[in-house]
Amino acid sequence: MTTTTSTSRSPVAVDLNGADQGPDVVAEGARLSGTPVELFGGPEITNDEEPALAVRSMKDASVVRAAKAVGAGDADALVSAGATGALLAASLFHVKRIRGVHRPAIAVLVPLPGKPVLLLDAGANVDVRPEHLVQFAYMGAAFMEAVHGVARPRVGLLSVGEEPKKGTDDVVAAHQQLAAGALDFAGNVEGRDLAAGTVDVVVTDGFTGNVALKLMEGTAKTVAGAVRDAIRSGLVSSLGGLLVRGKLGALREQLDPNATGGAILLGVRRPVVVAHGSSSAEGIANAVRMARRAADERMVERTVDALAEGGAMRSAGAASVAASHD
Amino acid sequence: MTTTTSTSRSPVAVDLNGADQGPDVVAEGARLSGTPVELFGGPEITNDEEPALAVRSMKDASVVRAAKAVGAGDADALVSAGATGALLAASLFHVKRIRGVHRPAIAVLVPLPGKPVLLLDAGANVDVRPEHLVQFAYMGAAFMEAVHGVARPRVGLLSVGEEPKKGTDDVVAAHQQLAAGALDFAGNVEGRDLAAGTVDVVVTDGFTGNVALKLMEGTAKTVAGAVRDAIRSGLVSSLGGLLVRGKLGALREQLDPNATGGAILLGVRRPVVVAHGSSSAEGIANAVRMARRAADERMVERTVDALAEGGAMRSAGAASVAASHD
Repeated sequence: MTTTTSTSRSPVAVDLNGADQGPDVVAEGARLSGTPVELFGGPEITNDEEPALAVRSMKDASVVRAAKAVGAGDADALVSAGATGALLAASLFHVKRIRGVHRPAIAVLVPLPGKPVLLLDAGANVDVRPEHLVQFAYMGAAFMEAVHGVARPRVGLLSVGEEPKKGTDDVVAAHQQLAAGALDFAGNVEGRDLAAGTVDVVVTDGFTGNVALKLMEGTAKTVAGAVRDAIRSGLVSSLGGLLVRGKLGALREQLDPNATGGAILLGVRRPVVVAHGSSSAEGIANAVRMARRAADERMVERTVDALAEGGAMRSAGAASVAASHD
Repeated sequence: MTTTTSTSRSPVAVDLNGADQGPDVVAEGARLSGTPVELFGGPEITNDEEPALAVRSMKDASVVRAAKAVGAGDADALVSAGATGALLAASLFHVKRIRGVHRPAIAVLVPLPGKPVLLLDAGANVDVRPEHLVQFAYMGAAFMEAVHGVARPRVGLLSVGEEPKKGTDDVVAAHQQLAAGALDFAGNVEGRDLAAGTVDVVVTDGFTGNVALKLMEGTAKTVAGAVRDAIRSGLVSSLGGLLVRGKLGALREQLDPNATGGAILLGVRRPVVVAHGSSSAEGIANAVRMARRAADERMVERTVDALAEGGAMRSAGAASVAASHD
């Protein structure tokens, strides 16, 4: 793999398009990150376009040029706040999948207080097979190790009960493979574990993961709103509300998706960070820092090693042969 | 169907087993409900047993005898706080599916503040086909109409985006059928809609629904705990905490699953209520009241009518012929 041979630092490629607050905020965020960047402006691929078609036809689109720079080794990682579909397609075409990986997945830190929990897939693959879920587990563990310094991440498989036989046939099959693998596998975890932080990584299909992520954001918002309304609903409690305002404001910042830097696309040959469309400059800066850290900590190389050690590559023999051609 | 001919009121059958706090609390709750009940004690089928086997072999089990009483028309509805699998199996064997219904589903009111939102399936069927999802929609709408007096319930299909083409192939197929049907169909809804109460009924498979339900409970708990910790983390805010305590306590009660009475099994010939294992006497009373109301408001008959009108019966011709044999 080309990535294993790069030692000198190239900049992080940043797509200027896609942020709700415009390209200036993205440029400002990139500057704030304190790490070398290369900025890519030009035409934008939006959510209205079919991603694969648009990435093929709009060769001067900012996200396409940024992805090409990463694929060519002129940049170490990619950050974009633009349309997720376009970023995914551009990454598949130009950054490319790791050999032996079936499907890249989108991973995201659960936006709740407490220790960081990584959820994947958060929406890249609505239909998955057991071997995809198994690879997601290794990919997610490598990310938590490389980027968050978790020594031996504990990985759970999202299901409807703790017993190994609970869940769909695909989940049951993935459970068996993970139990026989090289990870610190916690077995099945349930919806409440995702919120309680009982493991470091939670693996699921992209349909359930996407629903779960949006549901956590929505639930946190609804509960926080209900707390605010309850406090404001009486004179005495309103007075109390003034006294707790500072602390609750700090909590709100903790729940702010901008703080984490966004989602990351795992399973491609360089780190690709999916920044929130709603990102502030600080949000973009965090996204760039996460991309930089993933590159510096050799996340991709660690992923390759972990998949190989766990026997989870699509075809271990084929992958090592193919790698020698890179 | 026998259910359409019953006009006089029979009691609600209540399984005394299964509540964490014991049979006395169940009996007390049944009494508190203020509606006639028939209590069933005796051997308990627990989660450790294989439900279908246990229901067949333990003929004197409380949940089996209660279900038989309902199936025989000696009781109008069934309430149990015991093992969900056993209740489901006993209901399928003795209360029986509505003719034309593929699969009964477990429906539950979303445990968040705001207007009531019904989620189904919450775990009865981990694998579903499009026609199952379509029937869940009609069953859920009939419940909200009969039991919660919602005139023309708005129904959403849980997916990963609002566009009709988003989601798994099964979800896309169900979307098409629902869009062509007789319900007030809101199209696809996302995780955040489930928490925000933008529709009255949210339809999904039992895997996603079960994960979603436990995730909401877990998220609400985590956020509420973080609010409490934030308030207690400083002197001024702790003082404020004393002043907001009353209002937040009231909110906590609103989030208490006991308040809703539990989940309901839809698609069987009489109302079957799945009370929480953690139910207090008041929780049991609410469950009995919900069962009573579903019977009085002819929920099952309305479900049959709605499925027939929407052309969503398994086989409309076969169902009406079969019904004449009842």
